[in-house]
Amino acid sequence: MSIDINCDLGESYGAYRIGNDEAIIPFVTSVNIACGFHAGDPTTMRKTVSLALENNVAIGAHPGFHDVLGFGRREINISASEVFDLVVYQIGALEAFVKAEGGTVQHVKPHGALYNMATKDSQLADAIAKAVYKVNPEYILFGLASSEMIRAGKRYGLQTANEVFADRTYQSDGSLTPRIQEQALIHDADQAAKQILQMVKEKTVVSVQGEEVSIQADTICIHGDSNNGLSIVKKVTSILLQSNINIQNFLSTKQAK
Amino acid sequence: MSIDINCDLGESYGAYRIGNDEAIIPFVTSVNIACGFHAGDPTTMRKTVSLALENNVAIGAHPGFHDVLGFGRREINISASEVFDLVVYQIGALEAFVKAEGGTVQHVKPHGALYNMATKDSQLADAIAKAVYKVNPEYILFGLASSEMIRAGKRYGLQTANEVFADRTYQSDGSLTPRIQEQALIHDADQAAKQILQMVKEKTVVSVQGEEVSIQADTICIHGDSNNGLSIVKKVTSILLQSNINIQNFLSTKQAK
Amino acid sequence: MSIDINCDLGESYGAYRIGNDEAIIPFVTSVNIACGFHAGDPTTMRKTVSLALENNVAIGAHPGFHDVLGFGRREINISASEVFDLVVYQIGALEAFVKAEGGTVQHVKPHGALYNMATKDSQLADAIAKAVYKVNPEYILFGLASSEMIRAGKRYGLQTANEVFADRTYQSDGSLTPRIQEQALIHDADQAAKQILQMVKEKTVVSVQGEEVSIQADTICIHGDSNNGLSIVKKVTSILLQSNINIQNFLSTKQAK
Amino acid sequence: MSIDINCDLGESYGAYRIGNDEAIIPFVTSVNIACGFHAGDPTTMRKTVSLALENNVAIGAHPGFHDVLGFGRREINISASEVFDLVVYQIGALEAFVKAEGGTVQHVKPHGALYNMATKDSQLADAIAKAVYKVNPEYILFGLASSEMIRAGKRYGLQTANEVFADRTYQSDGSLTPRIQEQALIHDADQAAKQILQMVKEKTVVSVQGEEVSIQADTICIHGDSNNGLSIVKKVTSILLQSNINIQNFLSTKQAK
Repeated sequence: MSIDINCDLGESYGAYRIGNDEAIIPFVTSVNIACGFHAGDPTTMRKTVSLALENNVAIGAHPGFHDVLGFGRREINISASEVFDLVVYQIGALEAFVKAEGGTVQHVKPHGALYNMATKDSQLADAIAKAVYKVNPEYILFGLASSEMIRAGKRYGLQTANEVFADRTYQSDGSLTPRIQEQALIHDADQAAKQILQMVKEKTVVSVQGEEVSIQADTICIHGDSNNGLSIVKKVTSILLQSNINIQNFLSTKQAK
Repeated sequence: MSIDINCDLGESYGAYRIGNDEAIIPFVTSVNIACGFHAGDPTTMRKTVSLALENNVAIGAHPGFHDVLGFGRREINISASEVFDLVVYQIGALEAFVKAEGGTVQHVKPHGALYNMATKDSQLADAIAKAVYKVNPEYILFGLASSEMIRAGKRYGLQTANEVFADRTYQSDGSLTPRIQEQALIHDADQAAKQILQMVKEKTVVSVQGEEVSIQADTICIHGDSNNGLSIVKKVTSILLQSNINIQNFLSTKQAK
Repeated sequence: MSIDINCDLGESYGAYRIGNDEAIIPFVTSVNIACGFHAGDPTTMRKTVSLALENNVAIGAHPGFHDVLGFGRREINISASEVFDLVVYQIGALEAFVKAEGGTVQHVKPHGALYNMATKDSQLADAIAKAVYKVNPEYILFGLASSEMIRAGKRYGLQTANEVFADRTYQSDGSLTPRIQEQALIHDADQAAKQILQMVKEKTVVSVQGEEVSIQADTICIHGDSNNGLSIVKKVTSILLQSNINIQNFLSTKQAK
Repeated sequence: MSIDINCDLGESYGAYRIGNDEAIIPFVTSVNIACGFHAGDPTTMRKTVSLALENNVAIGAHPGFHDVLGFGRREINISASEVFDLVVYQIGALEAFVKAEGGTVQHVKPHGALYNMATKDSQLADAIAKAVYKVNPEYILFGLASSEMIRAGKRYGLQTANEVFADRTYQSDGSLTPRIQEQALIHDADQAAKQILQMVKEKTVVSVQGEEVSIQADTICIHGDSNNGLSIVKKVTSILLQSNINIQNFLSTKQAK
């Protein structure tokens, strides 16, 4: 039994710093590197790829909307065809840095508003999956567990990774509680760790409505830009290891077979 | 005896159109596709790659400064390391579209101010050559004949292509006459064709000072965005074919061997 | 009885040209100048302000989303507060050029997706009206006839101008027929002119459903970027003058009183 | 005897934070607010103008090159006419926020590479001074003491403010020691304060070559983004007040007369 832990990385931009990349990287097995559209820039990308390789974590492209000012969090009403194009572009840009440093790309995980929109919009999800498939059918598509993105990835024959969250609560339909609602976030590290353990071992989660809901957990998303994020990831790691669950990325899992 | 003819392509941006891609492409054997920094955007790149493949021309990346407003023509004072990064990024972005469409990249030719600066600045030239080498040592580096870019490419063991111009005059040191000078441009198609023929057959060019200067011509740059450009390329093509000089790109030359 | 005719101007961007500013300007009395967010750039703005003043047309700011690639036509999901900020910013930028050239600003007309969203979304409409009011309560707010934008302008005590279209059909609720529907556009210049005349004289329009709908027409939007646009504006102008309707902007109307 | 103290403000960008605006503002009398080209965005501008007004400091526009990625620190080779345009644009954008909040603009101080280039290049300096003059001849132009910018401002009849630095050393020709040289920076707060006092009282500064050089000090530039910057400004303030030198901006000086 094994699980991957991922976080976003390389979201600085020129003189502007965001995130705490060095602090969080020891706790994850996969990283999603910003590709210059919503965050990141060519120099930041090169340095972040280098940091990832030094830390032996698996690298993924983290494409977003072309909107540094909005950090990729604002929904932009674009066509599925344009989404295909911007995902291809950003995967390629990251690939070149990874190739230049002698590494390989493991996965693709869309960012922010693009991720959220593609969770529910099957056309956008299809465009993303198709972009990944066309660039390299070996790449793994990360998406919200049981979302349209996972379904789209499967249609193209891609390996997919169902993503779950330690610090977010779930609705009875398996979706995340929207951030605007009060119970959306889990601040308590113990509760977060317990939720993850149940997801991994039992393949269920208790929704805010109190129901036990089926969920598939292949990779856990954590956030390293807060002190709380760091204590959550430490608790999660600790509880998983105590339960003899391997924490490793998909490249390692493949090699182990 | 053979020569390549190249032109810039895919320099439109969103709703904005520049160039006359369909009209010029039948006359060239290689195209330099803008990569979204000085011109072009993901959708334009996809369509242009597709157009190039349909027309059986060889594809190159055409990286420039990040400056759509200035069309990549304004010198920006950045470090060699930043130049390395932006060239890696842009090659990668183009590669992904080419891969998605089932083609291959032949070459890299920097654009505008980046091209001009790297002609004389050996550090920038080195950064560009290193970027090409790191992404794919099989790619050919296009640069001004006998410039620092050609020297840098050779240092990295890259195949290089000395670029010459049909519609520009030369100085006795082998450099182009700066555009601000009166005699910089050749408007007469016959004169332009004659200059090219001499370059290819005799490996010389007559400078504005009246001297015969040695020059190596591997690829001819033409511009398709003016009626004059189209008449020049027709004359150039016609005179080369009459002289039994093959017009073909480097991939074809390689295959022919 | 009098009416204003307006068109968009100054939508070029660096080396990229859009529109046919010199050809259309003789046919209008007010112009909406792009402010650098969805189109236009500082140099284009200066030249366009100068062109407008030479042609004695009234000048308005034409603020849009910050999205040159999408030409301001893509909906971006931003808060009303952010809309307030970007409208203030863009009005100010245009004002400075107008002041530098010795002119005055008459009005503000939002562009593209911002215009369309604010037609129906009262919060966005309110933010736009408030921005205009805060920068200069003398400025006139242009908005779709009877839309939320007009209502918002009135709440702030602004003078408003109900905008009508010569080349678009209307629904029975007074809204424009969406562009994706077949009957959305009027291509026939005579029909367009007839629709305008009825709007101005009878204050009604016949909807695509065949009903006679009340409409207030203070300013007519025309498009100069097509041959059809030019023939429509000529017909519209001719029919209005034959009916003794003055074609003049709001500054002239004010002075005439 | 009085002197102004200024600092840069509002250089955050979307989700990205730079600077420590709340901490530094109590120590200055004038602030230079970024205008969205090299830093800042419409929302940040509105909030920063509001912060400035609450703190009763005088507001200036801080225009820079259009280069958020380079934070306006990279030289871009643009024409004097383009510099005029981008300065007009940015002053206007800031003016609108100041007007919307009920304040007034005191001055204009160019940023980064634009400031440095205009210090020595009389054509760029002229373009900046002309832009200020055309937008509002009452605005004060801030520039390096005795630089081309000050001379250009005087040619247009503008009030100028000679800017001096507490934490930088000077050459015998009155220029700043370039940052790449070892002695460029003054880290010791006492030494910085002593240098300022001499500048203000004696109108001289001791160069790194040991010579006493004439200098006019109208405004002192301080940096609030480091702990060292804060201790320097405290020492400078303290020594100036002990010497009975008023610390006040130019609007206050004018009103006092």
